[in-house]
Amino acid sequence: MSLIVVGSMAFDDIETPFGKSDKIVGGAATYIAWCASNFTPIKQISVVGGDFPAEELNVLSARGVSLEGVQIKKDEKSFYWSGRYHLDMNSRDTLVTELNVLGTFQPVVPDSYQDCEFLMLGNLAPSVQLSVIEQLKNKPKLIAMDTMNFWMDIALDDLKKVLAKVDVLLVNDSEARQLSGEYSLVKAAAEIAKMGPKYLIIKKGEHGALLFHDKEVFFAPALPLEEVFDPTGAGDTFAGGFVGHLAKTKDISFGNMKTAIIVGSAMASFCVEKFGTQRLREITKADIDERMQQFVQLVNFDISLV
Amino acid sequence: MSLIVVGSMAFDDIETPFGKSDKIVGGAATYIAWCASNFTPIKQISVVGGDFPAEELNVLSARGVSLEGVQIKKDEKSFYWSGRYHLDMNSRDTLVTELNVLGTFQPVVPDSYQDCEFLMLGNLAPSVQLSVIEQLKNKPKLIAMDTMNFWMDIALDDLKKVLAKVDVLLVNDSEARQLSGEYSLVKAAAEIAKMGPKYLIIKKGEHGALLFHDKEVFFAPALPLEEVFDPTGAGDTFAGGFVGHLAKTKDISFGNMKTAIIVGSAMASFCVEKFGTQRLREITKADIDERMQQFVQLVNFDISLV
Repeated sequence: MSLIVVGSMAFDDIETPFGKSDKIVGGAATYIAWCASNFTPIKQISVVGGDFPAEELNVLSARGVSLEGVQIKKDEKSFYWSGRYHLDMNSRDTLVTELNVLGTFQPVVPDSYQDCEFLMLGNLAPSVQLSVIEQLKNKPKLIAMDTMNFWMDIALDDLKKVLAKVDVLLVNDSEARQLSGEYSLVKAAAEIAKMGPKYLIIKKGEHGALLFHDKEVFFAPALPLEEVFDPTGAGDTFAGGFVGHLAKTKDISFGNMKTAIIVGSAMASFCVEKFGTQRLREITKADIDERMQQFVQLVNFDISLV
Repeated sequence: MSLIVVGSMAFDDIETPFGKSDKIVGGAATYIAWCASNFTPIKQISVVGGDFPAEELNVLSARGVSLEGVQIKKDEKSFYWSGRYHLDMNSRDTLVTELNVLGTFQPVVPDSYQDCEFLMLGNLAPSVQLSVIEQLKNKPKLIAMDTMNFWMDIALDDLKKVLAKVDVLLVNDSEARQLSGEYSLVKAAAEIAKMGPKYLIIKKGEHGALLFHDKEVFFAPALPLEEVFDPTGAGDTFAGGFVGHLAKTKDISFGNMKTAIIVGSAMASFCVEKFGTQRLREITKADIDERMQQFVQLVNFDISLV
């Protein structure tokens, strides 16, 4: 069973209170692939320029990430983003955004991807996300979608077309409020459900994540860490852990989605420990298992003591 | 087994985006008593003026709250606070603070309170909290203490004397950062442990609460609600549920403290549903049991699915 991942593969230049990364590999689909490939084979759809390191593509390929759907535009440059985090690590300033190859990206779904049952649409122009959905001959078992306030501001009509076709939407709390027009997250979830997604995941960074479905709600905390070194890609890594676990288990019940969100939270807790994708490159299955046990300790309580 | 509760009993005048309360009964020790009396008998220590309603004292007494330690100053006025919440309900402006009887409060611990094994010091001048501890002939099994940034600003030396004598400190996240000088809550917890409290509870309002002890950490979410009607007293109610459960079970293990924090979170989720103590006056044991089950659903996941 494999998972199609759509999104940017890019260069980032990150400054945090702990230091500067210089130009490193980033992009939503890169983080998702590094994370989800721990759980399931990946079929990647993206676009890079001739400047993107072949070595990066080789190591991803060796991890089980198919790159047939990754377009390489030899004479163009990869998407580039530069940002500086504030002291609280919850807010950041974008210093530079160069769309480059991403500005004209027209995704093509290879024939070999057609049998995939899971689709993860990373944060990208809604028109690109929609194009991938429309190229699939069979509706996937589950479509999950990440997006952001930027697309709500400039491409709301396109965004609503994608929303009507997806099962799970991932946004942060302020984006859920913007999209729904409701301040209460419970009310926001009810409004967003009317737009299409039967499942809504609201990411709250250091404050954890909420999963809403019908009248049900589940909460996953973030692991309290001594230091958050670099939050870049934490949301993408969270999404990768969530959808990677679902694709591995082929179980899209609400009960398994709870476990999947904890997997996402555990993977995101690794991501922020070092710059960029560095920590995701190092961790083993044993590391992941141990961290999952930390989450059990973090939230489990004994109701029989009441 | 009973529990000594120390704190203000007062009048509040609250304005939220949903309306105005007019002058109603409030105060930290009032909320704690209304909440904790669901679990254990209470020995109350406080001070009120001649204007405080006898009816309120009567209903508390009927719930098992001993008032022998509550001083009634017939010719003076009760503590009065008036505040207005902002639209997000997370911040508020204080409009009026009249200390009245609280300004000269000298607590006296009645002999009949001396056998209590649990002590809850509600948010109050540290010198008053210290006086109660020093009047007790035997050290209680557990002393829990609430405080706030105001006392860190104007009475830090006194506050540190109390901290050295308590087992559990309850503060919010910004107060934990102020007291410790550390931004990371994990590092803040380690610093505060050096000041005395072996257990630290960091309250994060709608984002839940963290319990730290040695290298262990536990997280309790807040219940996602359609509306938060009035947050006044939610922190006191949380403390009352926490210490009330511990006093009822007489078990101060870390495992039982986890359950106690969920009890506190469940009780706080009732408190915010109506103005003042109104909702706490209505709820039954069945309501509390049902809400505890909601917390099980909210956080429990199946690790065997990984």
